[in-house]
Amino acid sequence: VHEALEKVASLLARLPGVGKRSAERMTVALARQPPLMRDLAVSLRDLDARVSLCDRCGNLTARDQNPCRLCTDSRRDDAVLCVVEDPGDIVLIERSGAFRGRYFALMGKFSPGRGEGPQNTRVESLIQRVAEGLIQEVILALNADVESDATSSFLRDALKSRPIRVTRLARGIPAGSGVAYSDSVTLAGALSARQPL
Amino acid sequence: VHEALEKVASLLARLPGVGKRSAERMTVALARQPPLMRDLAVSLRDLDARVSLCDRCGNLTARDQNPCRLCTDSRRDDAVLCVVEDPGDIVLIERSGAFRGRYFALMGKFSPGRGEGPQNTRVESLIQRVAEGLIQEVILALNADVESDATSSFLRDALKSRPIRVTRLARGIPAGSGVAYSDSVTLAGALSARQPL
Repeated sequence: VHEALEKVASLLARLPGVGKRSAERMTVALARQPPLMRDLAVSLRDLDARVSLCDRCGNLTARDQNPCRLCTDSRRDDAVLCVVEDPGDIVLIERSGAFRGRYFALMGKFSPGRGEGPQNTRVESLIQRVAEGLIQEVILALNADVESDATSSFLRDALKSRPIRVTRLARGIPAGSGVAYSDSVTLAGALSARQPL
Repeated sequence: VHEALEKVASLLARLPGVGKRSAERMTVALARQPPLMRDLAVSLRDLDARVSLCDRCGNLTARDQNPCRLCTDSRRDDAVLCVVEDPGDIVLIERSGAFRGRYFALMGKFSPGRGEGPQNTRVESLIQRVAEGLIQEVILALNADVESDATSSFLRDALKSRPIRVTRLARGIPAGSGVAYSDSVTLAGALSARQPL
């Protein structure tokens, strides 16, 4: 039973935001609750049977809908491409209701420390997508950390030869937060991107 | 596919320390990685087939080993019983190497706000265990929050009529941390439980 517990914990620890300790606690919680454990096993199999990745943007999509709904929706703007690190980010941006263009999931970022560069992402596919000629602006909606910034710089340089705008998300104070809770990099970004009232 | 994703996310969100947002990100990560998703489904089934809860202490144990190894180990001290909230806590205390008595998992704590009282835990079973007469000290190794403290108080009163000591874990500054990182409740506890050098 020890091996079975460790196997589940090691798999859970490969999920984003799940450390070794929390994977262990999640495993114990599952082992304590057989119905939850079984439901999860069944639901994972069901999801596996239904889900695939959109060949065009990398978003999650149903197996019988590829390209995905966002790529085929004729009401969306082909001229603006929003590049995200993870397909999960697409859901969040869609929920904001503030974007009506197309998406592209990079499937990661460069992490030189772990020997991960452009080859570990879909950069080549992004450059080809831009080469199709429809896109006028690429919005880099990456995260706000060093590795994401390095990825943004690389993409900006890689797309330099194209007649398009390359922008990134504003840095600033998150809604509901305040100056007192913001670090100095955030504050510097919020100041330099200040907007007229 | 949307329902399949939401089903997995809602199950993951029932695990300890997993919020709605992180359950969603974990689900997307699983959906992106079919081998991981399949491995986890298989491993959960395997764990389900092997694991059960010890009838005596509530710890996780193999189906063919009940009572568990810790309850049957003749080298352990029957006179000291360590009461924890969750079976996962037993693993952590064992790792510390500082305890050689028996364990008892309460399977939760009282949470009056959610209408959860003694009936939601194994309190009755604990009182019976103490009534067997072997135990001389009950160590309440519960967490350091309001609900756990209420649970500790209840247990202290429930065991008052028995000729045993009831103790609880010391409050103090965690190893590797410092005064600057400790809240005032922790500091007050560390001061009142100060030890001679």
